[in-house]
Amino acid sequence: MSGTTLDDYTDRYAARIHGMAQSEIRALFAVASRPEVVSLAGGNPDTSALSMPDLSKMFTRLLHEQGPEALLYCPGQGQPRLREEICGVMALSGIDADSGASPDDVVVTAGAQQGLSLLATVFLDPGDIVLAEGPTYVGALGVFQAAQTRVKHVAMDDDGLIPEALEEALADCDRPPKFLYTVPTYQNPTGVTLSDERREQVLDICRRHGLLIVEDDPYGMLSFDGRQPLPLRARDGGGVVYLGTFSKTFAAGLRVGWVLAPPAVRDKLVLASEAQILCPSALTQAAVTRYLTTMPWRQQVKVFSTLYQERRDEMLAGLADVMPSEMTWTRPGGGLFVWAQLPPGLDSKAMLPQALAERVAYVPGTGFYANGSGHGHMRLNFSFPSVERIHAGVRRLAGVIDSAVRLRETFGA
Amino acid sequence: MSGTTLDDYTDRYAARIHGMAQSEIRALFAVASRPEVVSLAGGNPDTSALSMPDLSKMFTRLLHEQGPEALLYCPGQGQPRLREEICGVMALSGIDADSGASPDDVVVTAGAQQGLSLLATVFLDPGDIVLAEGPTYVGALGVFQAAQTRVKHVAMDDDGLIPEALEEALADCDRPPKFLYTVPTYQNPTGVTLSDERREQVLDICRRHGLLIVEDDPYGMLSFDGRQPLPLRARDGGGVVYLGTFSKTFAAGLRVGWVLAPPAVRDKLVLASEAQILCPSALTQAAVTRYLTTMPWRQQVKVFSTLYQERRDEMLAGLADVMPSEMTWTRPGGGLFVWAQLPPGLDSKAMLPQALAERVAYVPGTGFYANGSGHGHMRLNFSFPSVERIHAGVRRLAGVIDSAVRLRETFGA
Repeated sequence: MSGTTLDDYTDRYAARIHGMAQSEIRALFAVASRPEVVSLAGGNPDTSALSMPDLSKMFTRLLHEQGPEALLYCPGQGQPRLREEICGVMALSGIDADSGASPDDVVVTAGAQQGLSLLATVFLDPGDIVLAEGPTYVGALGVFQAAQTRVKHVAMDDDGLIPEALEEALADCDRPPKFLYTVPTYQNPTGVTLSDERREQVLDICRRHGLLIVEDDPYGMLSFDGRQPLPLRARDGGGVVYLGTFSKTFAAGLRVGWVLAPPAVRDKLVLASEAQILCPSALTQAAVTRYLTTMPWRQQVKVFSTLYQERRDEMLAGLADVMPSEMTWTRPGGGLFVWAQLPPGLDSKAMLPQALAERVAYVPGTGFYANGSGHGHMRLNFSFPSVERIHAGVRRLAGVIDSAVRLRETFGA
Repeated sequence: MSGTTLDDYTDRYAARIHGMAQSEIRALFAVASRPEVVSLAGGNPDTSALSMPDLSKMFTRLLHEQGPEALLYCPGQGQPRLREEICGVMALSGIDADSGASPDDVVVTAGAQQGLSLLATVFLDPGDIVLAEGPTYVGALGVFQAAQTRVKHVAMDDDGLIPEALEEALADCDRPPKFLYTVPTYQNPTGVTLSDERREQVLDICRRHGLLIVEDDPYGMLSFDGRQPLPLRARDGGGVVYLGTFSKTFAAGLRVGWVLAPPAVRDKLVLASEAQILCPSALTQAAVTRYLTTMPWRQQVKVFSTLYQERRDEMLAGLADVMPSEMTWTRPGGGLFVWAQLPPGLDSKAMLPQALAERVAYVPGTGFYANGSGHGHMRLNFSFPSVERIHAGVRRLAGVIDSAVRLRETFGA
């Protein structure tokens, strides 16, 4: 217990700490956030598209009408009023009362990240197996690491998770996996969407194997053609736990998300959440409730979608214009991300310092795998940078890739 | 995976779930919150003492000047600007740069509850031992339960934790405890404060045994005589992790608290927090920063303290007026709670339905122990109910206790 910065606690940490490591994405943010760098690395929605004067009025009314209450503790499960409104939101995606969704079964969380963390608390013992798409959401990998579980990736293609690969992964497990974690719509990091046909196949496989599905759906409403696919939860009321969030439809800085779970699971999630944070913020919950009930929020989601669609178009056109022919990428129908595959022999992680020197940032594909894969891939974000910056960023990136290709041609991979 | 409400997942839950149970306090809130019931059971500060017009103006300026940023994700460790301000707040309690406090070592959390939960993630393996006052904060018991640890209570009296009892508890452990969790100032649930002399003794014992201290200090600034004791962290920079919160000095509904920890521990807390919630709310962090930098917040803390002191006086006077002579209670110098000991033979938990029938609520002492103790005690809150309601509540409670005493005299304990 000296006052030095050495680690005096080495022999006292919990076992789980040894498996926890800083994600490459977060380590990158400090450099990527410099103004001269075009960051295609982030995952931020563009909150400058929100009307601050309207939000100010909303907060003023909120504090005037319910200030003292909104500044207090609230029930661990979340405000009843908000849980009702959340059911209204889910109904727009097809998860309605007919599919068994009820405000009683909604647990409000500090973002969907907390929802996933709570599911880990409730379901995951050290050594357990979780199935997840390969690649998958980096924040999910952080949760599964902290839970000391093993992640088994299931391969995907342009139609999402491959059902045959799911069957194979299941056959290959030395114990029944606790659940399948999936982002079926406009996935992070690939932007890929699970096809309707495969949705039924995946549900069928999971039903046969008694495998619980955790469906994470942050991007579903950010559809560019207005044809958001029916969530898994809307197709199977019993076997799917659903994670939702207002981070992309309203604002990530509020940290309001939710879990829709069967009653027995819900009760345990509430206990776990009370132990973690006591209760979600009453103020930000009240803000979301007002936003949903008094503001033209569906129109605002359309504003976001249109904006991101323009930026996706710019990114895809830019990639087609300037990238070497060996390079491929996904064509997302919504969401925030494009997933690009580098020319053979190139390593996105090794190439990153050069990219930063050329003032462009991306996330190396390795961040999205638990098993060291992903060196040949990168994630590119198009929701936050302007069209001009996307244009510049893609060109800078092409320069970096061209140099790497020339190096490869000269010296080999 | 049927659609019934039966628990289809029984064989899939994590082991930790079996030790987690709803706290008696939270189960009580539904009944206690009926308007006809005088609730002395809560733990809410009185947010109606805040000026809503002033807060509205603050939020309007916040959204105008930094809206888009305050609605985005932020660093997992919390906003740098807020971490600086937090150091300014701690310096008022004596935890300053001289005692090694730096913004770099502050982790902003979703309330101090999350801070404690993160410390459990970083330090506690199943089967580990944690020392804590008996009685202790119910939310801490929830964290330790979820971590599958054993809580060993250390006896306290009117001067707080008893150093000899701490020595005995340490001698009695079958493995070194991971830390001592303590609320040394205006403790929840007792309202008791660890004396200056004992602070040094406790620090000395912990130093000798290499025992880490987790100091939870939500109430220190709510001092009724202005003589807030020097925190343990200000006396020992190396051996104490400090938990702070704005829940009582500003508003619990924002869920903004912090941990001050040595660098090695801090890094692990940040990783654990990113896995739990990604980042704290940028909006509520910005609100707290503005509150601290543009509003007369120290004056507001004085308003809270004066209000609670009046209510404490009313409660103590009421108890002295109407309670049977066999009953005793603490005389808190600050904070939110009085801890009362019932006449011998009475059981606060068994008596609660009768109390609710008489329209008064309290928390039975059993909620604050991990070992089933506390039947002879109850926690009474004086921060939230008005003086009039405290007056009525104490009288109703006296009626219930008188009846129980008469029953005991007639039928035995």
